[in-house]
Amino acid sequence: MDNNESNLLRIIGSVTGLDRTAADKARAYQARLAKPPGSLGRLEDLSIQLAGITGRVHNEPKKKLVIAFCSDNGVVEEGVASAPQSVTAAQTLNMAHGKTGAAVIAKRLGYGMLVCDVGVNAEINDPAVTDRKIAFGTSNIAKGAAMTRDQAITAVMHGIELVSHAVKDGAGVIGVGEMGIGNTTTSSAVLAVLSRRGVEEVTGRGAGITDAAYKKKISVIKKAISVNSPDCNDVIDVLSKVGGFDIAAMTGAFIGAAYNRIPAVIDGFISAVAALCAYRLCPAAREYMIPSHRSYEIGYGVAADELGLKPLFDLGMRLGEGSGCPIAMMMLDAACAAMNGMATFDEANINDGYLDEIRKTDSFSVKGE
Amino acid sequence: MDNNESNLLRIIGSVTGLDRTAADKARAYQARLAKPPGSLGRLEDLSIQLAGITGRVHNEPKKKLVIAFCSDNGVVEEGVASAPQSVTAAQTLNMAHGKTGAAVIAKRLGYGMLVCDVGVNAEINDPAVTDRKIAFGTSNIAKGAAMTRDQAITAVMHGIELVSHAVKDGAGVIGVGEMGIGNTTTSSAVLAVLSRRGVEEVTGRGAGITDAAYKKKISVIKKAISVNSPDCNDVIDVLSKVGGFDIAAMTGAFIGAAYNRIPAVIDGFISAVAALCAYRLCPAAREYMIPSHRSYEIGYGVAADELGLKPLFDLGMRLGEGSGCPIAMMMLDAACAAMNGMATFDEANINDGYLDEIRKTDSFSVKGE
Repeated sequence: MDNNESNLLRIIGSVTGLDRTAADKARAYQARLAKPPGSLGRLEDLSIQLAGITGRVHNEPKKKLVIAFCSDNGVVEEGVASAPQSVTAAQTLNMAHGKTGAAVIAKRLGYGMLVCDVGVNAEINDPAVTDRKIAFGTSNIAKGAAMTRDQAITAVMHGIELVSHAVKDGAGVIGVGEMGIGNTTTSSAVLAVLSRRGVEEVTGRGAGITDAAYKKKISVIKKAISVNSPDCNDVIDVLSKVGGFDIAAMTGAFIGAAYNRIPAVIDGFISAVAALCAYRLCPAAREYMIPSHRSYEIGYGVAADELGLKPLFDLGMRLGEGSGCPIAMMMLDAACAAMNGMATFDEANINDGYLDEIRKTDSFSVKGE
Repeated sequence: MDNNESNLLRIIGSVTGLDRTAADKARAYQARLAKPPGSLGRLEDLSIQLAGITGRVHNEPKKKLVIAFCSDNGVVEEGVASAPQSVTAAQTLNMAHGKTGAAVIAKRLGYGMLVCDVGVNAEINDPAVTDRKIAFGTSNIAKGAAMTRDQAITAVMHGIELVSHAVKDGAGVIGVGEMGIGNTTTSSAVLAVLSRRGVEEVTGRGAGITDAAYKKKISVIKKAISVNSPDCNDVIDVLSKVGGFDIAAMTGAFIGAAYNRIPAVIDGFISAVAALCAYRLCPAAREYMIPSHRSYEIGYGVAADELGLKPLFDLGMRLGEGSGCPIAMMMLDAACAAMNGMATFDEANINDGYLDEIRKTDSFSVKGE
């Protein structure tokens, strides 16, 4: 085991679960707020999770950052993607300059966007893009491993380190997005191996491909798994053989968030697959994850089920980039606002009869408005 | 027909549907944005709806306002609510001073909150509360009509006028909320009549009541309908006999939004019932409505089905007050940001091959990420 891998294992080993005492205190405080108990639903859950993450009952994460990891995938030479590889570089630059979907939504809602090149197959050379390029794209997974084991670990470490730097710069929440033509193919391959499901169950049409290209995509993924024989119990092996630099770095970002005790928001399909990789590598990391939307991409549901997480909303989105993250971050803002700003029953000039009546009912937490 | 009612009919008659030309132009512009077509899902739909509402392809509503109509319901003397009537006045004041759930969430997300007393059973006398008090609560619907027909029309007109004033003050979107102990009972009564469903199908446990109180609530609603015999084809008759001042004023707010050509966001159960009343009075008003969350209250789904609207998110919330509105408003902000800020394919340095390939697929709008 080389130094890089032992570093990663050391970090994973130091991640611990939530602070149950703080979470319990937050739950007790929610019960004191002047509202029918449970009536803010998952906003209450978010405030309790956040307390467990930070160890503080009241939280107001100031700086929120969507991090998009961009890279290319050699497998596109098989004809599995709707767009040419050059779109990765073009959209990486557009995203860094605030012109893509995720970028404009994040900006409008007041959140930052960090764009990182971990393996775009073009010279980027733009100060708006953080350079962590490992190679000019991966190798074609239909013919062999996407990357070396050491490259996979390097990508994961880049993800961890980027989050650690962001936290030092004040980030209190991150969102994990991506840009990379061909990355629904690699994500489906990784998910098929980790979930032990059939390739058809976890493969969708990505940005939009014809029926013929869809059949081709499935056969390419099957071939990639057959050629590489990834070990489903070794996430790094799976990432290096049938994954991509983006998924590996995103896996690191999820681990990095847990390591730094901040929440990490999952975007769509690719992000959910990376979250699953992080969970398998580091089970405690899951407690730091906040799902955002249910992606239209078919594999999302499988990844979410494997994670045991239920998305917060479903807007029929399938853009990727991290575009669902700002909306979930805003829900987290709403959750914090309720926790911090609402009057308690004591403060609300509501007499005890109300509270007593509410407490008498055993059904209040699941029924009624 | 008195002057008040003829005024209302004149306003309803002047409401027209969406500007189809502007909506079509917005749809065409969405197709030019550098993303897989349809990949922003319902955010795209929102931008197109908004164009149809305002007649402009690009929109950025600056001021957004949650309006909460507060009033009391005589039916609480039957023991159908978990809280004493005094909570309505207390929470009306707390909301106006920014201490309730909806108020703190609206404020955190940057939106305004207008609190209006249309019938609270207490002297409010607080400049932070807009006074449109019609009476000190309604009469007990289990014994007779909640209010006179003229009072119902007055409440509807207050809703319309409040929205018209808000629009003059710059509001570009409103959310429609409420506060009123007992108002899930009146809402279920109104919905049972308008939907012709059984009372059990549309009645939940409100803020949280015991099994015995729940049975009582159902029998009280059945009695109210039987005693009053509201005419399901005459919404004003239904509102006046088994409704409340809040629901009637909220109905007016939805009509007022359509009249002023701005979107109106539906909150939870009570708001959805008022939206249904507005739709039945003024069918074109529905096109101005934006649903927010799926309330946990059982009747919500029935009201949404009758409206033919699908909520944007489901956070298991059942607080009321308008608490779901700010989150939907933020989704509208995200939709506007994408529409206004994203690069088009022409601007994105993406070659035509991508666009051509995307256009070749017949399945892109429903599948893949």
